[in-house]
Amino acid sequence: MFSKEEYIARREKLRQSVGTGLILFLGNDEVGSNFKDNVYPFRQDSSFIYFFGIQAPGLNAIIDVDGNEEIIFGDDLSIDDIVFSGPTTPLKERANMVGVANVMASDKLSDYLGGLKTNTEIHYLPPYRPEHILKLSSLLGSLPSEIEKGASTQLIKGVVKLRSIKSEEEVLEIEKAVNTTVEMQYKAMELAKPGITEADLFGAVKQIALANGNNTSFPTIMTVNGQILHNHYRKNILKTGDMVLCDCGAEGYSNYAGDLTRTFPVDEKFTDRQKRIYDIVYSAYRAAVDKLAPGCLFLDVHLAACQKIVEGLIDLGIMKGSASEAIAEGAHTLFFQCGLGHMLGLDVHDMENLGEQYVGYTDDLKQRTDFGFKSLRLGRMLEEGMVLTVEPGIYFIPELIALRKRAHKFEAFVDYGKLEDYMDLGGIRIEDDFLITAKGSRLLGNRLPSTSDEIEQFRITKQRI
Amino acid sequence: MFSKEEYIARREKLRQSVGTGLILFLGNDEVGSNFKDNVYPFRQDSSFIYFFGIQAPGLNAIIDVDGNEEIIFGDDLSIDDIVFSGPTTPLKERANMVGVANVMASDKLSDYLGGLKTNTEIHYLPPYRPEHILKLSSLLGSLPSEIEKGASTQLIKGVVKLRSIKSEEEVLEIEKAVNTTVEMQYKAMELAKPGITEADLFGAVKQIALANGNNTSFPTIMTVNGQILHNHYRKNILKTGDMVLCDCGAEGYSNYAGDLTRTFPVDEKFTDRQKRIYDIVYSAYRAAVDKLAPGCLFLDVHLAACQKIVEGLIDLGIMKGSASEAIAEGAHTLFFQCGLGHMLGLDVHDMENLGEQYVGYTDDLKQRTDFGFKSLRLGRMLEEGMVLTVEPGIYFIPELIALRKRAHKFEAFVDYGKLEDYMDLGGIRIEDDFLITAKGSRLLGNRLPSTSDEIEQFRITKQRI
Repeated sequence: MFSKEEYIARREKLRQSVGTGLILFLGNDEVGSNFKDNVYPFRQDSSFIYFFGIQAPGLNAIIDVDGNEEIIFGDDLSIDDIVFSGPTTPLKERANMVGVANVMASDKLSDYLGGLKTNTEIHYLPPYRPEHILKLSSLLGSLPSEIEKGASTQLIKGVVKLRSIKSEEEVLEIEKAVNTTVEMQYKAMELAKPGITEADLFGAVKQIALANGNNTSFPTIMTVNGQILHNHYRKNILKTGDMVLCDCGAEGYSNYAGDLTRTFPVDEKFTDRQKRIYDIVYSAYRAAVDKLAPGCLFLDVHLAACQKIVEGLIDLGIMKGSASEAIAEGAHTLFFQCGLGHMLGLDVHDMENLGEQYVGYTDDLKQRTDFGFKSLRLGRMLEEGMVLTVEPGIYFIPELIALRKRAHKFEAFVDYGKLEDYMDLGGIRIEDDFLITAKGSRLLGNRLPSTSDEIEQFRITKQRI
Repeated sequence: MFSKEEYIARREKLRQSVGTGLILFLGNDEVGSNFKDNVYPFRQDSSFIYFFGIQAPGLNAIIDVDGNEEIIFGDDLSIDDIVFSGPTTPLKERANMVGVANVMASDKLSDYLGGLKTNTEIHYLPPYRPEHILKLSSLLGSLPSEIEKGASTQLIKGVVKLRSIKSEEEVLEIEKAVNTTVEMQYKAMELAKPGITEADLFGAVKQIALANGNNTSFPTIMTVNGQILHNHYRKNILKTGDMVLCDCGAEGYSNYAGDLTRTFPVDEKFTDRQKRIYDIVYSAYRAAVDKLAPGCLFLDVHLAACQKIVEGLIDLGIMKGSASEAIAEGAHTLFFQCGLGHMLGLDVHDMENLGEQYVGYTDDLKQRTDFGFKSLRLGRMLEEGMVLTVEPGIYFIPELIALRKRAHKFEAFVDYGKLEDYMDLGGIRIEDDFLITAKGSRLLGNRLPSTSDEIEQFRITKQRI
């Protein structure tokens, strides 16, 4: 939690940027998994956290831009709540800690909105949970199907502008989460050996996140099949010759996220074939990191990584022809199907619920819709204070390769015969988190083994670098 | 997963019990935490699992009772799905494995329902997630506010009747989950020592559930403040003199739940004061377990436990007067604020989403609404094949005691002066899982240390019993 003044300043800036009307923030509620009271770990909405700082379900808030009024709506605990969940600080006090003077009971929100002048514009952010649609539908008297398109572009832009640039205090919180994530990565690399399961490593990594913060910042990917980009299967037994791809992140107590990936051999060393692909991915990582600086389009950073990937695959004979032409045709998406990175903050894909076009692009730079590029969440010009991930990878996805081959796609750039030798290699990704600084970038958190040599060195000696 | 014949038989019995109309089952969808794609661990709806067995989001199913038709609605994967989530068995094959011949695309469900004869009754279960309300509202053309009261009592009763009595195969699955839970309890009791945090133990226990099944079956309670019944705070550092209350459960790969509680000292031994209270809780546990048998009301088992608690507290001088009168007046609820147990199965509070009145009570035995008894989820007569928890406890909740004292409640039964000596003791609970057998009951899973002596013995020697 930050200072009262910080929250007041954030809301003041937002008010100025939205200009007029009423801003309605929905805090998140508890969500049941298999019945109402068997709840998933509570996660407050990130924009609610950013502007109001309070971590509790059942809250909503308004900022009346014209009337200069702020109110948090919520209820204090009943004796039943205290028996089952324990006492908490009264809402009035918690509101005061973030500089909000007014608190009202939850059921007053509907009356409050009903009492507004009829032409008052009510700004709200896009709903991403069914509960948001139901709440907004009930509060605004609109059909559920009307809610999504009623989200306020002006509010989205105002929030994105503020949350995109991290303060020093925010960077400190992100770095804490990254360092917990570093511990998670080391743990996976320490424990991996033939005979244990992906689930064993998954659990060990989760334990570190839980013991040092709120949770993991997203579902950990811990897999011997790294070619499946968001693989959540975890029953495989590790065996000699496999690689493990571990993509994980801690969410710290203040809700900021870390997000790191390492791919390492179950044995002490990579096979020659694995090492060749690993080194290409590392060269793409290096090229991308070297370009990070204010004023550079992240789209260009992505393309620099693609260039290295294609050049490396040409060297191996898997690809052929001109690297630039291959990229222009999209042939690289046969091996690198996703984006190079995304912003990182209170969300692991920061502000993804506000819309990738608003977060990662601009009015002049639209997000592309073709395969591969449509998964690049960030394209716009970098600015000092942004925090983002760089995560190039090479993935051999048999189903995708078969589909493209059958359609005679990319035949000028891909040697499908040679590719057969790598079809079962799996996937390799390297991911770190960076702050954009005045002149370039800074790696966040302690440095993990990154090159294939460093990874092997750690697997052999278990000595940190 | 069970045999095809088993799923067919379950649906046939349900069809007979509902009699006429169309049964609509909503499978669960993914739920985003802080943005749509940052999903919580997927949990299929338990009744969907029971009748259709398929663990995947985005499915719905119907049983046309009159037309004798069964259809699962869902979509096969796109190439984008395969790239990000990997290939899966086609829905048609998965449906075949549970004996359902017909599969249709998701978007056909709305047309299908629209094409029914206008007087067809559509039976559905009570919604417990906002997504259910939105889906049903859209499918049935009703307002969201109308959905909850439209749930079918006939369907609820039919489902409860089937799911209440566990087959041998189901008991086997529950016992697997209980045994994983036993490992979780041993781990907590092994690791606990002054200086580590509740979160350390929380993470260690979660790791075991994740490495041996789907997840925990509910959010683990791991606390030095056991008097808060569902305490999810976990930042406290364990210190000498504390007790840890660990209430946790594993959810196995087939979604059946375990649920066990132990309370143990951070030191090797309980203090005298802790041991006195512990032994009363154990006597209540013993009395309750000894009564478990077909034909016995669980309400009476609950009352037998209450009797032992009050008698024990009278012996200590905290309570006074007649135990039976104290219970009749509700004075025991000052220390035992909740119910003795609940059914256990695919849900840790089995079928809680179907309504406690239908699951735990009967038309002739209504659930009480007064403090304490309203939290008793199960009151009805026990039958062979039921699986349930027994979990008596004594909890010293300062806020509740202060409230009752100020109101001059229970003055004939409580010595508020003597009670001061125990005000900071916290809470103690002992919980095990039982199958109701032909003549009595059987403890499920390997037996954990249960008496105060056994607990101390384990804390000293770390030797299992």
